[in-house]
Amino acid sequence: MRVLICGIDGYLGWALAQYLAKRNFKVFGIDNLSRRKLVKKAGAQSVIPISSLRDRKKLFEQYYGPIEIVKMDLKNYEKLKKLLQLWQPDAIVHFAEMPSAPFSMESFKAAAYTHDNNLTGTLALLFAMKEVCPDAHLVKLGTMGEYGTPETDIPEGYYDIIFRGIRARHMFPRQPGSFYHATKVHDTINIEFACRIWNLRSTDIMQGVVYGTNQDHIPTRFDADAVFGTAINRFVTQAIIGHPITLFGKGQQQRGFLPLQDSMQCITLIIENPPAQGEYRTINQIEEVYNLTELALKVQTIAEEFNLTTKIDNISNPRIEKEEHRYEVDHDILPSLGYLPTSDMDNELRKMFRDLIPFKDRIVTTSIMPKIRWK
Amino acid sequence: MRVLICGIDGYLGWALAQYLAKRNFKVFGIDNLSRRKLVKKAGAQSVIPISSLRDRKKLFEQYYGPIEIVKMDLKNYEKLKKLLQLWQPDAIVHFAEMPSAPFSMESFKAAAYTHDNNLTGTLALLFAMKEVCPDAHLVKLGTMGEYGTPETDIPEGYYDIIFRGIRARHMFPRQPGSFYHATKVHDTINIEFACRIWNLRSTDIMQGVVYGTNQDHIPTRFDADAVFGTAINRFVTQAIIGHPITLFGKGQQQRGFLPLQDSMQCITLIIENPPAQGEYRTINQIEEVYNLTELALKVQTIAEEFNLTTKIDNISNPRIEKEEHRYEVDHDILPSLGYLPTSDMDNELRKMFRDLIPFKDRIVTTSIMPKIRWK
Repeated sequence: MRVLICGIDGYLGWALAQYLAKRNFKVFGIDNLSRRKLVKKAGAQSVIPISSLRDRKKLFEQYYGPIEIVKMDLKNYEKLKKLLQLWQPDAIVHFAEMPSAPFSMESFKAAAYTHDNNLTGTLALLFAMKEVCPDAHLVKLGTMGEYGTPETDIPEGYYDIIFRGIRARHMFPRQPGSFYHATKVHDTINIEFACRIWNLRSTDIMQGVVYGTNQDHIPTRFDADAVFGTAINRFVTQAIIGHPITLFGKGQQQRGFLPLQDSMQCITLIIENPPAQGEYRTINQIEEVYNLTELALKVQTIAEEFNLTTKIDNISNPRIEKEEHRYEVDHDILPSLGYLPTSDMDNELRKMFRDLIPFKDRIVTTSIMPKIRWK
Repeated sequence: MRVLICGIDGYLGWALAQYLAKRNFKVFGIDNLSRRKLVKKAGAQSVIPISSLRDRKKLFEQYYGPIEIVKMDLKNYEKLKKLLQLWQPDAIVHFAEMPSAPFSMESFKAAAYTHDNNLTGTLALLFAMKEVCPDAHLVKLGTMGEYGTPETDIPEGYYDIIFRGIRARHMFPRQPGSFYHATKVHDTINIEFACRIWNLRSTDIMQGVVYGTNQDHIPTRFDADAVFGTAINRFVTQAIIGHPITLFGKGQQQRGFLPLQDSMQCITLIIENPPAQGEYRTINQIEEVYNLTELALKVQTIAEEFNLTTKIDNISNPRIEKEEHRYEVDHDILPSLGYLPTSDMDNELRKMFRDLIPFKDRIVTTSIMPKIRWK
């Protein structure tokens, strides 16, 4: 199968390229390198060093054979159409979005940039697919954060309700917690619409928090700063440099997590099992649910195996969010496609400490504490 | 009360400015004149002649006293903040959006423009309100089209459901029928979020199809082309020039309608009755529900009073939409605020024929038939 990865230079994109190449998929990629620029602007860097896109491509070809990667913006509609014509992908994995909630809340400018980058990119892709490859499968990265933290269970995208005696299948309501999360909801609305009117097919992945380092030849980036780092990745680097693990507020927020390699397994299964033409499918992609205090304690325990003593601080929450809430998430579709977790949190944490300790000096301590507040 | 109208130069904006001024509101306005440009680009013009913004302002001041109107884009965040500081509005009516479904479906470029204009404008307003006037009431123009045509009744924004034994109040799912309608859904999500985290207050109006000419001293624009004209307005102008009334497909689509003057009454009531601080309120603003064939027959009948003989054509539907569907819409909040319809369809149609027949020669016949198709 031929797979185009939009955002191939990112944390997930670079890991997926190798995961697929090892399994004999033909991989193509595009990226505008915005993640590199934005992390730099946030005063941080990838803790694990990554080479330039040009050198990455060379390395990739040494290990896996030829790959085509084009540096371009997904919003470049004309160029995108030409590449789709040339490459004829069976699946298009769309990771090309600005992924930071704090970044999107910093200012009007940042919120507007997030909307433009994420929504215009997705629109360009939808229009180009309609024109050039309407049979291709759009594998879109959404987030569990689209749902927010409702009082009820969270189904996989849709649920059956009865309203005034009429039974109907409705989209489960979304309640995003940042403008970044909001752009993912907007994409959901736009993609469902495109499938409905243009008969495209798409899987919209409501992904939990992915953590960990990759297991392939060429490392993927690893961010641990307050803007682009996610919870577990940040906790481990905090432990490595002897900084307290910082919990926001009560630290009872629950989230679904999965290790990077298992996320790659999920996405590969989704590519191998496309929905029917015209179908818009939502899949919840999580493995284990923890509250953040449980996680911090796990990181603290594993850190001790590496002779690292760490304390846990509850700091003032920079976000506005429920700090105690229900979190019961359906996630049955991926197991039905054959998904089997290959790792667990403890194993992954050990691997992370081993992979990251050598790069201890690259952790930018000034970028660790949150500076952007929701209010 | 001090009211800022964003999009004051448009169909609704110019009518509202006068409606409010007559009732002793202090009115301010901004507009980027994009509607004038886009209608011209679509090869059409306002059937009723309108003067330049500068001359409109002069006329306005003759009848109603001083008004401040600034030509600017709502996306100009810095300028917007300065004006909000200066004007200190109690309510901000947000009409400054690209309002055409066909326009938004024409191309990637048009869809992207619609997203940028509508979403970035609303984001600028939300951030500026948070900074400058967090107590002001945002009166936002949404559309009944956000809901699509579900199998169930349509409540006012929210409904009570039971999911796996848990009772919850959920946002009623949105299912837009064009990228234009999608941008209104995105705004809904963003505004609800802003009220939740920044404690702003907003009324999001799910407005039906507004039709008719205004009753005040200075005419508002009147579009009847296939891109910017809405159903009844188009039907009446078709009848006037002896063009068949064009129904899309079966013509059994149902919509909620209300005359321009009653829409102004509704919006004024909403301004006078703001929600609590932090509240996001949805109101369905419609008066009468008709299917389009019923409407075409009404227009045909009234046209005969003006010695105009018109036939009705069912043409191939340029849109992708349900042509037969349920349409049961709650609209109880506005009556509870004191809304009383002052007119009905037959009266308004007569007035429209009287107002529009003198400008028969301004109806651009080449702009009447739909050229933009959803597929």
